Amino acid sequence: MLLDQIGEFGLIRKFISNLPPFPRAVVVGPGDDAAVVCLGRARQASPLLLLTTDMMIEGVHFRKDWMTAREIGDKSMRVNLSDIAAMGGIPKFALVSVGLPKKMSVEEAGQIVRGITQAARESGVAVVGGDTNASPKLVINVAVLGEARGRFLTRKGARSGDFLYVTGTLGDSSLGLHALQRRKRSGFKKFIRRHLSPPLRIAVGERLAGRPQVHAMIDLSDGLIGDLGHILEASGVGAEVWVDHLPRSAGFADKAKSLRLGPLSLQLTGGEDYELLFTASPRTRIPRKIDGVPVTKIGMILSRKAGLRLVDRVGHRYFQRKFKGFSHFSERGSSWGRVS
Amino acid sequence: MLLDQIGEFGLIRKFISNLPPFPRAVVVGPGDDAAVVCLGRARQASPLLLLTTDMMIEGVHFRKDWMTAREIGDKSMRVNLSDIAAMGGIPKFALVSVGLPKKMSVEEAGQIVRGITQAARESGVAVVGGDTNASPKLVINVAVLGEARGRFLTRKGARSGDFLYVTGTLGDSSLGLHALQRRKRSGFKKFIRRHLSPPLRIAVGERLAGRPQVHAMIDLSDGLIGDLGHILEASGVGAEVWVDHLPRSAGFADKAKSLRLGPLSLQLTGGEDYELLFTASPRTRIPRKIDGVPVTKIGMILSRKAGLRLVDRVGHRYFQRKFKGFSHFSERGSSWGRVS
Repeated sequence: MLLDQIGEFGLIRKFISNLPPFPRAVVVGPGDDAAVVCLGRARQASPLLLLTTDMMIEGVHFRKDWMTAREIGDKSMRVNLSDIAAMGGIPKFALVSVGLPKKMSVEEAGQIVRGITQAARESGVAVVGGDTNASPKLVINVAVLGEARGRFLTRKGARSGDFLYVTGTLGDSSLGLHALQRRKRSGFKKFIRRHLSPPLRIAVGERLAGRPQVHAMIDLSDGLIGDLGHILEASGVGAEVWVDHLPRSAGFADKAKSLRLGPLSLQLTGGEDYELLFTASPRTRIPRKIDGVPVTKIGMILSRKAGLRLVDRVGHRYFQRKFKGFSHFSERGSSWGRVS
Repeated sequence: MLLDQIGEFGLIRKFISNLPPFPRAVVVGPGDDAAVVCLGRARQASPLLLLTTDMMIEGVHFRKDWMTAREIGDKSMRVNLSDIAAMGGIPKFALVSVGLPKKMSVEEAGQIVRGITQAARESGVAVVGGDTNASPKLVINVAVLGEARGRFLTRKGARSGDFLYVTGTLGDSSLGLHALQRRKRSGFKKFIRRHLSPPLRIAVGERLAGRPQVHAMIDLSDGLIGDLGHILEASGVGAEVWVDHLPRSAGFADKAKSLRLGPLSLQLTGGEDYELLFTASPRTRIPRKIDGVPVTKIGMILSRKAGLRLVDRVGHRYFQRKFKGFSHFSERGSSWGRVS
């Protein structure tokens, strides 16, 4: 069987099932946004460390005619910082490996570094090491070590009855990507920007982890449906998403329609918004803004047997035929009934 | 200017000089085998963490017709573990990112994972996370988090008068690589093995770090001359290397000559032995074997103005015309006078 038949998530499951049993020092192993580990004999005495890594490859994650070298460097950091934020942790140190084409100019390589250091500075992260290599295609791998101060959040822990919340707006990044693919820059700047430079939700994530009534969290990289699916699977629950409540940025629907794209479809399945999706007990009041970032209630966690339902305000249900987020090895996309 | 003109080390220097100033939590920043950092407010209260990363790219670091998928996975771990060993630390956790061609078989991808987990198990490291991507060429990036129990060693700290030591034997890996390049497997198995699966010197490194009279250490990835050069530069000293004392494995010289290669040249400039090179005070006795691994005295640290001298037992000096270890962006090789 070839990789494009088994799919990315199938492969990851296979990888994880082959790993030897974990020592006690591994608090959260592979399969969440970041791993949680501790050092030293007494778990209480050691700070909880968060570890995450992400690789970006030219032609797969980005195209050099769409992104400047600086934007590529910046984004390679941000997607990793987002994984730490999704656990409610504070990113502290980063390692950066690059594979650079020999015929790249020193100026361009320097711009990549500038992008990386810019995102590092903005988030208070120190780039403490790396590896430099020649490569046929540009490749950047970032690994980040973060710290959880006290509590951290995972995909596991959502409870039936919790409300479902999301930060910021949904679908912008995907709309920006579509605009880039169709070479329509004018009028789509805001959305393209969202695709090229994901938001940093570190402070929001930390605040949420500090509230015991927040139960589960993930960052939105694979799309709302895909990432909510990760929470449901890990927590063993179902959910209802109120499609009319999904937060949209100004002008989003019109701009989507101008490219003949369904706004709701983008919001449900478009990847790389890098907002936080979380669940919290109905007994806690989640503010409408945290650290200046809007937070919107978009649904409710149900029991597992409810599956995942999408409902609009008149009670119409949208049925999922097949859904999944972005998978690197599978060409099968998402298809939905009744989606605008 | 293009990257192949400035060279790898020039680029790294440029990268490092562009980084913002480090917070106090960074004990050792970029430029050594691993970074040393601590978490928490009180440096004493926190364990010292070691961080390192290395990327391996198909066609640059390995060729799939030379190495099995399992060997590629195994080596990608070992080169990182070696960096932790070179600081005298204990590797604990690893993150593995892979870029896999879509037309790779699931079986082959599984063999890569098997190689990674095999090296992890052998070294007591837990693979706690990773990232899986499609990629035109096979790319593996490993990042390792280690721990320094008490003391750690860097490239800095060699003192004039120290003796210079190396573990194991020199040049084997490079001879194995030459054999692979010329498709001569028979008779070169031992050397090819050394190239494909670097030794783990973790226990030796830890023991050495525990001896206060051991002053500086590095692992041999760029070749003896190149890596000794890193110690000399970082420590601000010179050195004398006793070329007749360089440890050779059985049959090494004959096998090298059979490929018309100078044995001494291989030992001086051949990369990827992944042995430990260290300096220690002349007042301490370094055992001939540590943890079963032979240790050989191969020279002496001198003052900076002595530069780097190579001498044989009759006092002949070898003069360096130009030397450097392996650089990814420079095609300029090493050339030596009077080398066997």
